[in-house]
Amino acid sequence: MHARVLGSAAGGGFPQWNCACPNCSALRRGDRRLAARTQDSLAVFARDDAAVLCNASPDIARQIEAATVLRPRARRHTPIHAIVLTNGDLDHVLGVFSLREAPPLAIYATASVKTASLARFTGQAVWRDLALDRDVELFGPAGEPTDISVRAFALPGRTPGPEDNVGVRLTCGRTGKRIVYAPRASYATPEIGDDADVLLFDGTFWSNDELVRLGCGTATARDLGHLPIGGREGSLALLATCRARRKIYTHVNNTNPVLRYESREQIEVERAGWDVAEDGLEILP
Amino acid sequence: MHARVLGSAAGGGFPQWNCACPNCSALRRGDRRLAARTQDSLAVFARDDAAVLCNASPDIARQIEAATVLRPRARRHTPIHAIVLTNGDLDHVLGVFSLREAPPLAIYATASVKTASLARFTGQAVWRDLALDRDVELFGPAGEPTDISVRAFALPGRTPGPEDNVGVRLTCGRTGKRIVYAPRASYATPEIGDDADVLLFDGTFWSNDELVRLGCGTATARDLGHLPIGGREGSLALLATCRARRKIYTHVNNTNPVLRYESREQIEVERAGWDVAEDGLEILP
Repeated sequence: MHARVLGSAAGGGFPQWNCACPNCSALRRGDRRLAARTQDSLAVFARDDAAVLCNASPDIARQIEAATVLRPRARRHTPIHAIVLTNGDLDHVLGVFSLREAPPLAIYATASVKTASLARFTGQAVWRDLALDRDVELFGPAGEPTDISVRAFALPGRTPGPEDNVGVRLTCGRTGKRIVYAPRASYATPEIGDDADVLLFDGTFWSNDELVRLGCGTATARDLGHLPIGGREGSLALLATCRARRKIYTHVNNTNPVLRYESREQIEVERAGWDVAEDGLEILP
Repeated sequence: MHARVLGSAAGGGFPQWNCACPNCSALRRGDRRLAARTQDSLAVFARDDAAVLCNASPDIARQIEAATVLRPRARRHTPIHAIVLTNGDLDHVLGVFSLREAPPLAIYATASVKTASLARFTGQAVWRDLALDRDVELFGPAGEPTDISVRAFALPGRTPGPEDNVGVRLTCGRTGKRIVYAPRASYATPEIGDDADVLLFDGTFWSNDELVRLGCGTATARDLGHLPIGGREGSLALLATCRARRKIYTHVNNTNPVLRYESREQIEVERAGWDVAEDGLEILP
C-alpha cells in the first residue's frame, strides 16, 4: 500500500486567488521558505492499476497530471477506480465534475454527504453507500478490485449530522497497513489514529482567531468546524499520545504559519514528531 | 481595451487527464512542438481595475494566479467584476464555484443558460440577464463600472434554444474597440466578425470525425455542436472573407492537429491569416 498527497491546502489553495495575506504575498514574491499547494486530496493504492481517491478537489486535473502513476495507459483510460468523499464541501467534491470525460466512476459517500451536496448532480457516477463504523471493500465502477477497504467514522463539526463529515480509515487487503485520513475535524482524541500506520489530520488553522487577526474574515477556526493545531486545546496537544507511527497535517489553509519553513510554528510541529504535507508527498505506511 | 486568453483548450484541457491520444502522449514525452493549455476562458479589460471574464473554467484559480493583472491588490480583493457565460457547459461554468471565497460576483447570462445549467447553484452570485441582440453595459456586483458593454447573439448548436449557446461582442466604452468571442459555434458566416477588431472563434476540432478516427469517442464534431476548422465546409473556408482585423482560434481540443507547431494543419491556418490561441496570449485590439 502506498499513498500520495495530491493536494495539501485547504479550500482556495495556496496562494488563494483573492488573498494577499502575509503567506500568499510572500509566496508570490518568491519567498523560498514557502511552497505553493493545491487543494486537499489523497490517492491511495494497494495495486498501481487501481487508485482510490479520498476527495476530489477542483485542482484534480493538474494533480493527476503531476502524478505519473495516475496518468492514462491507453488511448482513453484512467487507473482511478473509486472516490471516497469525506464531506460535501465544494473543495472536496467539485473535482468529480472535472472527471466527466470518463465512464462512470464509483463514488463512496455517506447518505447525507450524497444527499446534502451531490444529489443535484446526477449521471457520470455509480454511487455506493458508506455506512458509519463498518469496513467496506472498495471496487471500481464495474466491480474491479482495489484491494482496499474503508471504514468511515463520524467527525461532527460545523454541520449537525454524524454522517455530514467523516474521517476514513483505509486498510490494505494485502498487507493490513492502515491510513487514517481526517481533513476536517472539530475535536481530537488519540484513539483516532492509535491503530493506524499513518494519520493525516486537519491542519487547516494554527490558531482559532487566525482569519480574524489577519483581516481575512470574521469566522474562527471552530466556527468553521476546524480544531486549530496550536495552543493548550489544539490538536498538537490533544494528539500528543496518539500511537500512529507517522502523523501528518494536511488541508492547510493559506493563512497558517506552519506553511513557512523555519517559522516558530513549523519548528514546534516538527519537534512534536509531525510533518506538514506538501503536494506530491509519497507515503509508504 | 485589452484581453488575455486565460485558457485556450476545449473541455478537459490539454493534456486531458484520461487521454493518451498522439497529441497528449507527445506532450507528456516533452515534445517541444506542443504546449499545454488550460480550459477556455478570456479576460477583457477596459480598465485594469475592472476585469470582465468570458466564461469561468475549472482551471480558473491557476489562470488567475498566472496573470499578474488578475491578482489581489489588498488583503482580500479581486479585480474581477463580472463574468459573462456563453453557455452552460461545465467547462465554462464550474470555475464560478472556485471563486466562492469572494463577495458575490456579477454574472451575466441568458435566461436559458442560467436556468438550464446554474439555477441549481444559488448564492454567491448577482445574476443579471443577457438578452439577445442588445448591448448591455457591464457593472460589478455593487455597480462598479467596467467600461465594457456586451451584445450576445444566438449560436444554435447541439442544444435547441437560441439562448442556449451564444457568442458575445464586447465593446470598449472608451475606444470603441470590439472583440467577438464565440468558443462554440456550429456554423459560420463572415458577418460574425465583420465589424470586430478581433474575432476569437471555435477551434475545437480540425475535422468532423477526429474523435472517432483517433479512437477517442464516437461523436462527431457536428454531433457536439462544433463546426470543424478544416475542409470545404469548415470555418477556415467559411470565414475566409470575414473582415475582422485579427482572427484567432480558441477552445482547441486536445486531439486537434493544429496544436502541433509546424503540422500541415497549423501551417494552413497560419497561411490563412489565423492564429491559434495559447494560454496567456495578450490581445491588443
